[in-house]
Amino acid sequence: MNIKKTKLNENYDINRRKFLFGGATLASVAVTSALSFKSKAETLSLDIPQHMQTPGTQSAEYGVPSKYEVDVKRKMENFYQSAIFTGGLTPLDKLNGVITPSGLHFSIHHNGIPEISSEKHELLVHGHVDKALKWSVNTLLNYPMVSKIQFLECAGNSAANAVADSPVDGSCTSIHGQVSCSEWTGVPLKYLLDEVGVKPNGKWVMCEGADGGSHVRNVPLQKLYDDAIIALYQNGERVRPDQGYPMRLFLPGYEGNMNVKWIHRMEISDIPSQSKDEQSLYAEYTRDNKLHQFTFHMEVKSIITKPSGQQQLPNKGLYEISGLAWSGRGKIKMVEISVDGGKNWQVAELEGFTMDKSFTRFRIPWQWRGEKSILMSRATDEFGNRQPTRSEWKSKFSDFTINHFNAINAWEISKNGKVSNTYV
Amino acid sequence: MNIKKTKLNENYDINRRKFLFGGATLASVAVTSALSFKSKAETLSLDIPQHMQTPGTQSAEYGVPSKYEVDVKRKMENFYQSAIFTGGLTPLDKLNGVITPSGLHFSIHHNGIPEISSEKHELLVHGHVDKALKWSVNTLLNYPMVSKIQFLECAGNSAANAVADSPVDGSCTSIHGQVSCSEWTGVPLKYLLDEVGVKPNGKWVMCEGADGGSHVRNVPLQKLYDDAIIALYQNGERVRPDQGYPMRLFLPGYEGNMNVKWIHRMEISDIPSQSKDEQSLYAEYTRDNKLHQFTFHMEVKSIITKPSGQQQLPNKGLYEISGLAWSGRGKIKMVEISVDGGKNWQVAELEGFTMDKSFTRFRIPWQWRGEKSILMSRATDEFGNRQPTRSEWKSKFSDFTINHFNAINAWEISKNGKVSNTYV
Repeated sequence: MNIKKTKLNENYDINRRKFLFGGATLASVAVTSALSFKSKAETLSLDIPQHMQTPGTQSAEYGVPSKYEVDVKRKMENFYQSAIFTGGLTPLDKLNGVITPSGLHFSIHHNGIPEISSEKHELLVHGHVDKALKWSVNTLLNYPMVSKIQFLECAGNSAANAVADSPVDGSCTSIHGQVSCSEWTGVPLKYLLDEVGVKPNGKWVMCEGADGGSHVRNVPLQKLYDDAIIALYQNGERVRPDQGYPMRLFLPGYEGNMNVKWIHRMEISDIPSQSKDEQSLYAEYTRDNKLHQFTFHMEVKSIITKPSGQQQLPNKGLYEISGLAWSGRGKIKMVEISVDGGKNWQVAELEGFTMDKSFTRFRIPWQWRGEKSILMSRATDEFGNRQPTRSEWKSKFSDFTINHFNAINAWEISKNGKVSNTYV
Repeated sequence: MNIKKTKLNENYDINRRKFLFGGATLASVAVTSALSFKSKAETLSLDIPQHMQTPGTQSAEYGVPSKYEVDVKRKMENFYQSAIFTGGLTPLDKLNGVITPSGLHFSIHHNGIPEISSEKHELLVHGHVDKALKWSVNTLLNYPMVSKIQFLECAGNSAANAVADSPVDGSCTSIHGQVSCSEWTGVPLKYLLDEVGVKPNGKWVMCEGADGGSHVRNVPLQKLYDDAIIALYQNGERVRPDQGYPMRLFLPGYEGNMNVKWIHRMEISDIPSQSKDEQSLYAEYTRDNKLHQFTFHMEVKSIITKPSGQQQLPNKGLYEISGLAWSGRGKIKMVEISVDGGKNWQVAELEGFTMDKSFTRFRIPWQWRGEKSILMSRATDEFGNRQPTRSEWKSKFSDFTINHFNAINAWEISKNGKVSNTYV
């Protein structure tokens, strides 16, 4: 694959400055420019639908999506043939913007979702401290908080493209749906650490969930001072049970499972504990036969969500290529798009604010003329980290490493408009 | 009321640079600093709850809040004793951050919620155009889109404080819950206007919903070129039925009812039509006996959500005063807080990005020493617009004008910590 950047050819069919859509149809009924309600009858009298002739229904106390959107749901998954290591994947290809609704946020749990009352739950911080302390949920709800819109990604997201020798025939949801983005609100850990008084030899924190089986991960103490929070709210409302109700640890940019849900205990220590998850599931093997533990950051990455795998372009014409980019290191600086398998690249528009460790939505218009095309996106973050090609990534990690796959992904558009996962 | 700004007294109990919380309790069980899972048994063996001894449940395809949060819901309202002019108010006092979950977004509809299929719905644009056109929903879903996080407020929000001679005993929800904030994604109207070709005498657009009774408002054409969208997504997923599924007009900063839901027809004209809503419900009378029509913008405003009406401070101590500010004109520049009924003001911290026509969350610590206090917030936007006092606002509008009330609101804290709505 030739990934050198080439100058935009004027005839090239992808350009963020040109936009001439034309999808509308001529109104087939007579229209009048007279300014009156009479014009309505003249233009639309043939099809006043039933719902315009009767009053509608009332709001619910807690609203839900349209019944016509019933197929917009998480894809249920069992991991490792386990009955309790399960989860649901975000339908990225059916969403737009950067916020993931909480009901569709990906959710993976090693031991199932415990049912915990907010009234009874407490957080204990102990270990290498001046005085061990514990907080009730109600106490923390009166503490000062911060809110940030940030992504969360499972270490194993996109694993199919990491390990399958031939590209799996999957959707954006099934291959890449273990990443989501919400507004997370909670209490900065630094306030709690100041209260307990961390001793000089405190360097690591063992973080334990109150689920059956007690999911445990070790976090460097410094991260808790930097930007970690005890998250109590997600997208405005209290964190939901499958996200850790009544509280979860939130570590911006770190792999999902370290953001311990239902957190109830943090033990400050001088060295990390070697829990099972530190040694196997969340460690990576490289080609030089080394095991890398404590690989926290989710690296710079991007996914084209529209068009994407298993979708069908209805006809030739102008489309918007759109997707999501993120980096566990910081902000997204640039996303480049190729429609020819990486021969040419064009810079996409980044929408709105490019927030720290958050989704950034990119958009670029594309004229599809009915030819076979290969769509790819390549993100670069503010520190110059850029997504590797798949072969570059594979040359570094062992065959059976599934985590932290952040290579450039590709969708092939066939001549009849079918979109499918592919390798370049 | 003396609203001159005074210099911060060093003993003044509100200061965003000082923070010494101390709500935790000493852990009452023996703790050890030994780094091992054994420490867990020693610290917590007395109360390993049932949910840590059994596997949990699986995720749902579409998640919901905890059953312990069942009282976090919209407050149902009937307006004008009508069975169909109804809605639900956002429980602002139970939320945090700036995003309102879609299920809790305020929703008011004059004619109830119609049930409309996305497959059958069309948008017609006609009137003073070169050619009338219509778009199916599926066609628009392939158009280029924009996403922005922006507020939406009913013209009549906070009306109780505008018209009641004595302060009503209400919550933040019941008095101020007709405002919410979401990420709205949709197709810029300018693309559609370019396609139909607006004639030179086109100046206004009559926008009609497909609800029973056809809610109609008139919008200046220029607003549609500036930043209006046909909104198809809210907070990532498709707009919900009570927000206009399959599509609504979204006019950033304009009063709620102009953001016509279930929009199906836009007629471009040279003058606005004098629909019933233009002449009465959404026009304002001023003291000089004039009727003001076409009052679009929701002006600069702020609400303290925490603590707020009908809440109870559990004890003396340090609290975070937090709330929301917004302006239909642009960005929020400053929010000042008073805890003494407006004698002294202190600048609060504005969180994160201050986005255009969006919620901005403000936060400031406050030491409550058990004395009677009156909390007020005063927002200023980027154009220097500042919230008036209630008496300033009342001196301008007639006694029975309920719309566009943006005066400074006040919460009284009694000596026993009860919070109630008050006037200053």
